[in-house]
Parts: sequence; C-alpha cells; structure tokens
Amino acid sequence: MCGGMTDSTVGPTVLAVNGGSSTIKFALFGDDNTERLRGVVATALTSPPALVEQALATVASHGHRESLGCMVHRVVHGGERLVRAQYVTPELLAVLRDLIPLAPNHLPAEIALIEAFMAATPDIPHIACFDTAFHHDLPAISRTLPVPRSAGVRRYGFHGLSYAFLLSELARLDADEAMGRVVLAHLGSGASLAALTAGRCIDTSMGLTPSGGLVMSSRSGDLDPGVVTYLARQHGLSLDQIDEMLTRESGLVAISGGTADMQQLVAHEDTDERARLAVDLFCYQVRKWMGAFAAALGGLDTIVFAGGIGEHAPIVRSRICKELAFLGVRLDEDRNAVNAAVVSAAAAPVRVRIIPTNEALMMVREARDIMKDAGAHR
Amino acid sequence: MCGGMTDSTVGPTVLAVNGGSSTIKFALFGDDNTERLRGVVATALTSPPALVEQALATVASHGHRESLGCMVHRVVHGGERLVRAQYVTPELLAVLRDLIPLAPNHLPAEIALIEAFMAATPDIPHIACFDTAFHHDLPAISRTLPVPRSAGVRRYGFHGLSYAFLLSELARLDADEAMGRVVLAHLGSGASLAALTAGRCIDTSMGLTPSGGLVMSSRSGDLDPGVVTYLARQHGLSLDQIDEMLTRESGLVAISGGTADMQQLVAHEDTDERARLAVDLFCYQVRKWMGAFAAALGGLDTIVFAGGIGEHAPIVRSRICKELAFLGVRLDEDRNAVNAAVVSAAAAPVRVRIIPTNEALMMVREARDIMKDAGAHR
Repeated sequence: MCGGMTDSTVGPTVLAVNGGSSTIKFALFGDDNTERLRGVVATALTSPPALVEQALATVASHGHRESLGCMVHRVVHGGERLVRAQYVTPELLAVLRDLIPLAPNHLPAEIALIEAFMAATPDIPHIACFDTAFHHDLPAISRTLPVPRSAGVRRYGFHGLSYAFLLSELARLDADEAMGRVVLAHLGSGASLAALTAGRCIDTSMGLTPSGGLVMSSRSGDLDPGVVTYLARQHGLSLDQIDEMLTRESGLVAISGGTADMQQLVAHEDTDERARLAVDLFCYQVRKWMGAFAAALGGLDTIVFAGGIGEHAPIVRSRICKELAFLGVRLDEDRNAVNAAVVSAAAAPVRVRIIPTNEALMMVREARDIMKDAGAHR
Repeated sequence: MCGGMTDSTVGPTVLAVNGGSSTIKFALFGDDNTERLRGVVATALTSPPALVEQALATVASHGHRESLGCMVHRVVHGGERLVRAQYVTPELLAVLRDLIPLAPNHLPAEIALIEAFMAATPDIPHIACFDTAFHHDLPAISRTLPVPRSAGVRRYGFHGLSYAFLLSELARLDADEAMGRVVLAHLGSGASLAALTAGRCIDTSMGLTPSGGLVMSSRSGDLDPGVVTYLARQHGLSLDQIDEMLTRESGLVAISGGTADMQQLVAHEDTDERARLAVDLFCYQVRKWMGAFAAALGGLDTIVFAGGIGEHAPIVRSRICKELAFLGVRLDEDRNAVNAAVVSAAAAPVRVRIIPTNEALMMVREARDIMKDAGAHR
C-alpha cells in the first residue's frame, strides 16, 4: 500500500490534478498541506494544452504560480507493476500507454493531460498516483478472476486513493478501529466497496476495469457474461456499442429512464416508480456487498460511508443499513439525518461513520513521500 | 411458483427426461412416485432419434414400456412467459424456439430431443418443466439487471426444479423452517444459490443465462463486463470464442489448470497450489453469496446444501461455514464429515441441512399436477 498516514509538514506547494472524462479537477495545497485553491475545468470541445492553460491561469490569478513546486496526477490504472506513486518519466509514460487496453475509456485522456501539463511546466517535477495501487496485494482468492490464465486478467480494484485517505482518517480517529474489520463504501457516480482487516485490503468490488462490481450511475457493474453475448447476438451490437451501453447508458440512468443523480432520484421516488426502483436497487446492491464482505471478513466492526452519495444521502445510508441489524448495524437516525461523523447508535456493535473523502490530499501526501524519499525538494 | 408440495399417489407411470449437453438422464416413476428405473445415455456422436431409441429400449427391457403413461421434459429456459409446467404442443415448441437466444448452448438440443421423444411415443402426453419457473416472480430489485430496458433482459434464475424440490422437502421436515429465512445452495458442476423468505424466492445468483452468478466447474459466473470487451480487443477473440471460453474453459477448470472435479481438487490440494486455489475460491465465493443473501433476507435461519458438491463434499461445506459464525452458523464437524441430514451444531442459531435433491421427482410431481388439472389421466 502506498502513502504514509501522517501529513508531511514541510515541502513545496503541490497541485493535485484529477483528469476525469468530462472535467479536470485541480486542488492546490500549501506546504502545510492545507488546501489553498480548488478548481474545475470542463473538458468538452477543448484540447489538453488549452485545458492546461486554463488551469494554470487560475493558479496564477490567485498568485500561486511562482510557489508551485510539484504537480501530482491521478492515474486510473497502474496495472500489475505500478503499485506506488512515482515520478513521471518517458519510461513511465510508455508503461502507461501499454496499459491503455485495461482502461481504454480513461487512460488516453489522462496521458495526454499529463504530457500537456509537463510541456507547460517543465520546471517542476510531475508525479503520478495510481488508483489501483491500494489493492495491489489482494489475496489470491479475491485477486483471481476465474477465467483462463492466458486471458491475462485479474481483479485490480479502484478508488484506491480514496480508500487510502479513508483508512488514514480512520486511523487518526480510532487506531483500533482502523485495524478491525472494516468496510469502506466509496459511493459516488462511480462506486465501489473495499473490505479491510488489520489495515489491509482483502477484497474490493471493482474488477479488471472500473466497470465492475456495484451498480453505478451509468455503469452496470458485474454482470452475467451471457448478457454481453446476448446483446451482441440478439441486438447485433458491436463491441464499441456494448461498451458504450454498459459504461454510459446502464446503471441508475437506465433503471430510472432519466437521471442518475441520486438527489433527484430520491426527490422523485414517491411519484416516479422508476426513480424509486433505481434508489432501491442501489441500496439493495450495496447492502448485499456489505453482507458479502462481512462474510469475507468473518463479521464487521466498522462501516465508512464516503463519496457524494455516501456523504450526503441520509435516506440511502438508512435504507442500506436497515436490514443489516443482524450484523450489528443500527443507525441513530437523528445523527444520520444531519450527516454526522458517526451515524450509528451509541450501543450498536458496528460503528458506522461518514468520512468526507479527499483524494487530492492523499495524492499530495503520496507526492511528498516520493519527494522526501528522493531527497528532491526543490 | 409451479408444482405442488405433496406427492400425488395415483396416476400413470411417468418418465422424467433431463437432456444435458453431454448426457441424457432419465428416471421412471411408478404411480406411487417411487423411482423404478434410472438411466443415462451419452449424447456424443449420436442423433436425437438414436438416443431416444436407446432410452426407450432400456425402459422396455425392464418391462415398463407398456405402463408408460407420460413423459416429462426438463427445459432450461422458459423465458418471461413459461412460468409453469405445461403440455408440449406445436405452439409451445415454437415459443421455445423463440427463446433459443436466451440459452443457445442448451435449448436447441433440448428441443430436438423432445421432438424425437414425441415422434417415438405419440401415444402418450408430453409435458415440459422449466428450470426458470421457480423464480418467475422475483421482486423487481433482484429481477432487474441494470442495463437499458431496450436490451430486453432480466434475471431469470435457474435450478428451479431443484429449488422447488428442496423447498418441498424442507416443508416436510419442518414447516416453520420452510417459511423462515432460507438460503438454498445447489452446488454441482452448475451451481447457484437462492434466497427464500416466507416460502418465496426473493433472489438468486444466476442471471439471464446459466453462465452468471457463482463461479462453477467451467463457467466464470458474474464478471466485470470490462473483462469481456478486454478479451475481444486485446486477444482478438470472436463472440463465439469468448462464449466458449467463459462457459467451458473458465471457473474451477481454469483456476486448477486441470480438473474441475471437486473430489479430485480436494484430494490434491495439499500438493497442488492451483487445486487449492480452486477449492478456496469456490468456498470463498459461496460464503460471500451467503453473506449477500443474509443481507437480502435481513438474517438467516436455515442453509440447505444440495447437488453433487453440496451433498458429498464435507470439507467444502466446512470451509464455507467456518467464517459464517457471525451469522449464527456453526457446524457439528462429526455430523458434517458423514454428510448427515443436519450438519449444524445442536445449539447453533442457523440450522444447516443437507437435502439430496431430486429434480426428476419434482418434474414428475409437476407433470401429475398438470394432468390432474387437465383431467387427462389416461
């Protein structure tokens, strides 16, 4: 597992860049790891160099361009070999290009963006962090996907930067709890869960790619593979069309027939049967994954909710947890209603927490660790 | 749900036919529903009419041809409309042909076999039973697959004849238990689980086709759909090759790199790391499905093991249940070692049973119910 658990308190100002499919988010952290600036640039219709110019202009307009000492980039997939953060070099970029088949919807844009940022700021080091790294040492029973070895696939798992942050926060809040049987639930438009014991990740819901596991906003999650061959044979869909359908037109947006926005779905579920089904199905699947991971862990001590839905949707947490009383889960609905830090009832055997995740801060910590190791403070 | 729970005690001799991909199994039941004859015919290199001739010759050689009053056929898939057993008619055969895309590996051979049996025995009624029927009224949250409605897919579920039999046996053994929170685990070379409460199936592991859910002898079970597109893009596999890989070359046979036979895997796991991983992964996945279904049911009262592995592999049951103590599962290992009818410890909150399944008997019961309804005893 990469990354330290404590903040470094010295070092340069670092810009954390998270290049998604529709936006680039960036956040600037001062030498004490406090956030100084946060911004979003929409990627639509714009080339990477133009995006970079826009982002750097924002940084400069707030007077931070000169103090900027490092840039750290989130990379969705590190494959089998990239299991910790590292400096971006031509060799690293070549390895990333080889990994494109593992994340064809994400990696090409991420690589182009890193190159554009490097071209615009050749004076500072660039570091890459991998969202798969947290899970690199999964046990064989959860790492292995039951297909022929010649296929060359395994479970990688994603949301690792978020999980690393949540684990470090949990350790800060209660060191014993962080070593217990923990399920981390990162529930956003992408969503996954991770099962941890003794501070180590032993299973996670996503698989080879970020399309697997739990149902998501527009991704199906795990499926009977017979569905894929059926779509191809019966509907004559091409591979690209199937990929498009299962990653952009499935999940909550398919069930609701409209939006995938959880707030809107919850707002309309009393009058819209399909919105209701979308919310119910999401809660039902999360609940089942929690039961599965409790079985993997031999029981449960802590649940951590994070991500846009996990942090801000009381009714979703409530509906997930209601049927988990047999595991020792019991919410304090008053605390849950206000998104409190601890939402479980005082006497409940399982503690249920909300921890606002902060992938950008985790990236900056990882970057500082790398720079410290390299003795490369500039 | 189709089928009655009690045996009819009058009626004709009935031949139950279960046409698999490599064998045809048949079993003859007398008018008191006792089994009179059981046989297997290998399908390799033989046409349906020749297979039928062989099967009927066996029946005749034991003196049962003249008393034969009905034949009942197991059909893997009944689709959306065929939710109970019924007489085979030209109309029904047409509906079945329309369903071939849902089970392209099974239905064509099954249809051909039914037609051959009907041609050879036009004097008696033929009835079809559907392995999906048991699950036809799954709740929307488990029936719905999170892909666009236009795809026209849903979770059907399979092993329904086995589940119907197990439920009827459980009701006979303990009527209260049959109405409780029950997980039925049909673990054979095909394997699935079903979650029942109040005698109704609320979820099951298989999906649109029998390729989904739990890892099996040669099937992968549910997968990150990204694996399928990766196989096509990276390895250049065609749809048929992917289908072949995921249904015949995956699962335990892929992990072990040799056999999928659970007895052999268990026998070699001390010296063969890959055999060990196959056994471990199977047990781990079953355990996780049980945890997931416990979460679906809000807790667990009864687990029923059935099928070749479920009935005859003590070490598999033991390894599945060991980490489920938090659910109230505790085995009596002495009873488990001898495949006893009840293998849980006397004081354990969850009762764990072994019930030898009997799909043929269930088919015969369903056939008798149909004939009774139709007033068609001949």
